[in-house]
Amino acid sequence: MILALAGGVGGAKLAHGLSMQLKPRDLLVVVNTGDDFTHLGLHISPDLDTVMYWLAGQNDAARGWGLADETWNFMAALERLGGPTWFNLGDRDLATHVERTQRLCAGDTLSAVTRYLCDRLRIEHAVAPMSDDKVRTIVHTDEGELEFQHYFVRRHCEPRVFRFAFENAEAASPSPAFDAALASASTDAIVICPSNPFLSIEPILKIAGVRERIAQSRAPVVAVSPIVAGDAIKGPAAKIMRELGREASALEVARHYRGLIDGIVIDALDAALKPQIEALGVKVAVTNTIMKSRSDQTLLARTAIEFAAALSNAVRA
Amino acid sequence: MILALAGGVGGAKLAHGLSMQLKPRDLLVVVNTGDDFTHLGLHISPDLDTVMYWLAGQNDAARGWGLADETWNFMAALERLGGPTWFNLGDRDLATHVERTQRLCAGDTLSAVTRYLCDRLRIEHAVAPMSDDKVRTIVHTDEGELEFQHYFVRRHCEPRVFRFAFENAEAASPSPAFDAALASASTDAIVICPSNPFLSIEPILKIAGVRERIAQSRAPVVAVSPIVAGDAIKGPAAKIMRELGREASALEVARHYRGLIDGIVIDALDAALKPQIEALGVKVAVTNTIMKSRSDQTLLARTAIEFAAALSNAVRA
Repeated sequence: MILALAGGVGGAKLAHGLSMQLKPRDLLVVVNTGDDFTHLGLHISPDLDTVMYWLAGQNDAARGWGLADETWNFMAALERLGGPTWFNLGDRDLATHVERTQRLCAGDTLSAVTRYLCDRLRIEHAVAPMSDDKVRTIVHTDEGELEFQHYFVRRHCEPRVFRFAFENAEAASPSPAFDAALASASTDAIVICPSNPFLSIEPILKIAGVRERIAQSRAPVVAVSPIVAGDAIKGPAAKIMRELGREASALEVARHYRGLIDGIVIDALDAALKPQIEALGVKVAVTNTIMKSRSDQTLLARTAIEFAAALSNAVRA
Repeated sequence: MILALAGGVGGAKLAHGLSMQLKPRDLLVVVNTGDDFTHLGLHISPDLDTVMYWLAGQNDAARGWGLADETWNFMAALERLGGPTWFNLGDRDLATHVERTQRLCAGDTLSAVTRYLCDRLRIEHAVAPMSDDKVRTIVHTDEGELEFQHYFVRRHCEPRVFRFAFENAEAASPSPAFDAALASASTDAIVICPSNPFLSIEPILKIAGVRERIAQSRAPVVAVSPIVAGDAIKGPAAKIMRELGREASALEVARHYRGLIDGIVIDALDAALKPQIEALGVKVAVTNTIMKSRSDQTLLARTAIEFAAALSNAVRA
């Protein structure tokens, strides 16, 4: 069984690749919920939605987030009524938020709601939130403290970042499925998807006990670098690394995850960094990590799985 | 100034006719909110929406309720997710419910929210809810007590009706605009639109003091019969009258409103009822009351206005 940690689009793509390589019972995708927020009275879980829509094959591939064949008539009407339009909500996507919110208000856990939605979307592989407890990512910037979506969507990641806080993370428990996978002897590998290390993966690691349990896991831990040739494939990861005074590079990603991971998959464009990364005590696999197609997703997933298996055998040997 | 009391489609059509005949400062449309309910976490005011959409010229004329050029992608997605689909919500219409709910949750009164929405929809004439307090119409039927929308939409008015209850009506106050119009010496006439007398008008009359204040008003009170040739033009009014052991006729409508109204406008098809209605002490105007077109709305509005003026002059003479 493979435990994958994922955030938004990059994570969803690799999760999709893993789902094409693994049987349903052999994969659990644990998703960041630090980006969740309440908007227009709706509980919105952007990363869960992105992962679900990709696994269901209903994602909009060009936009990255949201549903394919989406329409925007609600948004247009809301704009005419003077409502807030900085966070785009498609007509079909709205149903997910409404149904989730109704079920949460009825007392279901986010795990239960996610299982229900995945079932309705005919997703066979397991998807779980990192926690059923509320954790909120706060971005400390030169414009003050911003809630994640205000930083990310409303302000287009423009403010300069000083640091991140994950409200309530240390008091939060891993979701039941996540907790079980961390405890299970059947977990053969932990894959950290190419999601933003600071915004998507860090909240997951900050949950009570998670970082320690992953670091001490007997299963090999493999990260896929979201930084390729000094830039992020999508999103603000590179900008944030520079604002935090670090170089935006796969080497810095490896340095960031040092102590937690056994290996990292880096892009062929970054092959030259391999010796420096290995000098950190982190094994390196080199492949194409830019996922433009389904076959890119499948190939990267296979590389990550095989790399983890090789690391596992190396440990046992 | 004319005070019009309205419910759903029939009321909205006459209100639209009145708005085409009167200056903005010369009309207040007070709308039933006994049908309001919370659905999918949204505060839905079906009658207010119908009146607003008609006055804004954005109504769907064929369907009667909702917006023109509506799309239903939210509903289709909600159905796929197993959500409740018995109450149809168009993608554009959803924005009204979301914006209203947000503003009510922020502490605005329903009057203030209605004013705001009318302003955004560029409605120049005044529209107000009957009350800013919660009143809920309960239908007592052979299937038990049903909330209004469950009776009306979910069960298609099929259960047999015994009586109606208007929860909290007697503890509710008229909305500020309604209260002011009832108190004002400038109110020249009160028009009871051809809305369901039991389901749309009765809740308005049941609000603390309203029936007495209308009955005692120095302004003439004119109703327009929603029953034409023994049937309702739209909706369950005739069926309900029969279930309550009454004849479905303009005469019975006049009898129902006796003591409250000075005159009633009946359809030319019911001209033969005029002597019997006048024997009740209610004056009668006869015209075409079936509003199939804008000009039908305008002509019926003009008839009601002129009839009220004539009644007023007769009193003064």
